[in-house]
Amino acid sequence: MVDVISSIDKVTGFSAAGVHCGLKKNGALDFALIVSDYDCATGAVFTTNRVKAACVLADMDKLSRAAGRIRAVAINTRSANACTGEIGLQNAQHTAELVANKVGCEPDQVLVLSTGVIGMHLPMDKIACGIELAHQSLGDCWQEAAAAIMTTDTRPKYASVKVTTDSGQTYTIAGISKGAGMIAPNMATMLGVIVTDAALTIEQAQQTLLIAADVSYNRIVVDGDMSTNDTVSLLANGASGVQLQTADDLVRFQEALTALCSHLAREIVRDGEGVTKFVTVRVTGAPDDESARRIANTIATSALVKTAFFGQDANWGRLVAAAGRAGVPLEPQNLRLWIAEGEGTNGALLLFAAGMPTDYQEEAAAAIMRNDAITVTLDCGMGHGSSYIWTCDLSHEYVSINADYRT
Amino acid sequence: MVDVISSIDKVTGFSAAGVHCGLKKNGALDFALIVSDYDCATGAVFTTNRVKAACVLADMDKLSRAAGRIRAVAINTRSANACTGEIGLQNAQHTAELVANKVGCEPDQVLVLSTGVIGMHLPMDKIACGIELAHQSLGDCWQEAAAAIMTTDTRPKYASVKVTTDSGQTYTIAGISKGAGMIAPNMATMLGVIVTDAALTIEQAQQTLLIAADVSYNRIVVDGDMSTNDTVSLLANGASGVQLQTADDLVRFQEALTALCSHLAREIVRDGEGVTKFVTVRVTGAPDDESARRIANTIATSALVKTAFFGQDANWGRLVAAAGRAGVPLEPQNLRLWIAEGEGTNGALLLFAAGMPTDYQEEAAAAIMRNDAITVTLDCGMGHGSSYIWTCDLSHEYVSINADYRT
Repeated sequence: MVDVISSIDKVTGFSAAGVHCGLKKNGALDFALIVSDYDCATGAVFTTNRVKAACVLADMDKLSRAAGRIRAVAINTRSANACTGEIGLQNAQHTAELVANKVGCEPDQVLVLSTGVIGMHLPMDKIACGIELAHQSLGDCWQEAAAAIMTTDTRPKYASVKVTTDSGQTYTIAGISKGAGMIAPNMATMLGVIVTDAALTIEQAQQTLLIAADVSYNRIVVDGDMSTNDTVSLLANGASGVQLQTADDLVRFQEALTALCSHLAREIVRDGEGVTKFVTVRVTGAPDDESARRIANTIATSALVKTAFFGQDANWGRLVAAAGRAGVPLEPQNLRLWIAEGEGTNGALLLFAAGMPTDYQEEAAAAIMRNDAITVTLDCGMGHGSSYIWTCDLSHEYVSINADYRT
Repeated sequence: MVDVISSIDKVTGFSAAGVHCGLKKNGALDFALIVSDYDCATGAVFTTNRVKAACVLADMDKLSRAAGRIRAVAINTRSANACTGEIGLQNAQHTAELVANKVGCEPDQVLVLSTGVIGMHLPMDKIACGIELAHQSLGDCWQEAAAAIMTTDTRPKYASVKVTTDSGQTYTIAGISKGAGMIAPNMATMLGVIVTDAALTIEQAQQTLLIAADVSYNRIVVDGDMSTNDTVSLLANGASGVQLQTADDLVRFQEALTALCSHLAREIVRDGEGVTKFVTVRVTGAPDDESARRIANTIATSALVKTAFFGQDANWGRLVAAAGRAGVPLEPQNLRLWIAEGEGTNGALLLFAAGMPTDYQEEAAAAIMRNDAITVTLDCGMGHGSSYIWTCDLSHEYVSINADYRT
């Protein structure tokens, strides 16, 4: 059992800062900087959207050359630097140069992450100011860094885990993330930076992050949209002196990293735009895992399912109807559908079986639906494929936030 | 140019009724019956959802045996008769028997359509009462029939078109439809009954309906959900004495039927749940038509795009980002995006080209976005594939309607 805590104490050889440089109008923190004293082996996963932000294109390029030597990550809000053409690429490069000057490294060693409005150029004078201020403020300021990358998030998301190796050495993995709209599997407006003072190879950094992201960041749906900017990176600087020498050490690192990413990904859903309920959609008994995932995703992106959750309505009909249009050859007769409170299946109530509603009590279902966290389990009765998605309801607040976002 | 009018005068040999039989609580019309004096050649398209209502399964079965002899269509609201097991099938059959007794035909000659809550059994005593009342009221009561099939629709949808053949004979095609939620391509909670007094073969009825539905009912998206009950049928009783003898006659019939279905399908979107804007999404220059359709559909189902329309925000970034995740290998540099008021492209304003926003004036874009009808055109700059979808915005009212639907 991995013990993820909702705070970050210290990660050896890393420092962080979050400052205000005028990107947000209300004086809130709006620019974050994370610096390592040593070169980092770095892995990253990026949006699969065909329309990629300038910073994403630039970071992908840098990692192809300098994945073993990353020293810093700069993150701005307000502008996504997406659909910004040649100037956007120049601005991303200029940001990296300014950071590199401060840190004392090459621009290729600086990742730049952006989030905000698509099509707006980075206001470079403010970015320069942000780099200046953030560099002065560097320290164990992880909470400030997490706050400085928020857009429509209502609270900062940061967590860490301490791991002890076979030989009794200790290292830390810590991460910050943001949501909160354009959230769909395979990344969204979502940004995440994970750091560890354990020593990893580039391949280990990339591989362990891929595995962790596949069961965490890639399992969350707020609105089914996928952004141009999604990026999660893992930087390992080895400053703890801990090498992952045994197979067991690597397994333990993977477990800890996965638990940390799961924690941060779920925090994104919990704090999704307008969210009032955290919903885990579990699909079992599908022909294969991919089919299960497709069904879970169709349920999780259904506007009718999501509004029913907002209405605290145990509307199994919409859940079954969504499953039925997922493109998987389901047999309605074989479906069984449960709801349960919380994130597990304890006390699950069977709502649907043998092609019909069961004789469940509406009050028992209503009591479950009143919880902040609800788990839906759909068994397809076909095979051994299974999957899950973490998602949320669709509320008035979501509409308000997104009808007014640019104005 | 086909002249579709928003009324139904008379269709020779057909009669219609809409009555209240206690299915809806407020005394509103809730049960419709359409009867032909003669056997009808009948085509139909049904939901592709794997979870199909009992009435859909029963109607598919009947059409396999009696597609040349259909005499009546009965439509109830309140209960979808979906996920109702053996009892649901028996109730659908019993409804057909009761209608058949009144009309003087076999149960196989009666189609039964249902719309409403999934998992609720048909209240057969009320249905029997509805059949009794409707049969007494049969006449040219198309408006009442259209009103009697409404659920969350705010207005009845009915229209007709008169066609003159090469030889100067005249016949009518008329139809009623309902929406208004669970609307997605390949049918939704959507019901439609089209009747004509022209004479068609079964194959002509099926084929012309398939062609018309493909460019009308299958092009509409309200919320991206697909229901268990979607059914559109075309009944041709030949009572006008008009045979479609020449190739030109058949083409003219197809054009008139397509225009009628397009009219009714667009009415469904215009009156979709919570809709404040009618949006036509056109995609051109895609690798092929199927890719174009996938892009149009991804845009049309994007919660972020739809809330931006509700907010009257010319948020081209969300449009481009949605296109980018459609699974088509787009090149952002080649995309061009216009918006225009109304349902055409006159006065279209280019918002995005060469990977960046153009230097359009925000006020010009805002003026277009304030219209009730807006057309978005995305040219992919890749090939000759094109498609379109009719859709709408996502409003507070949609959330209210669907959070509270069952209660």
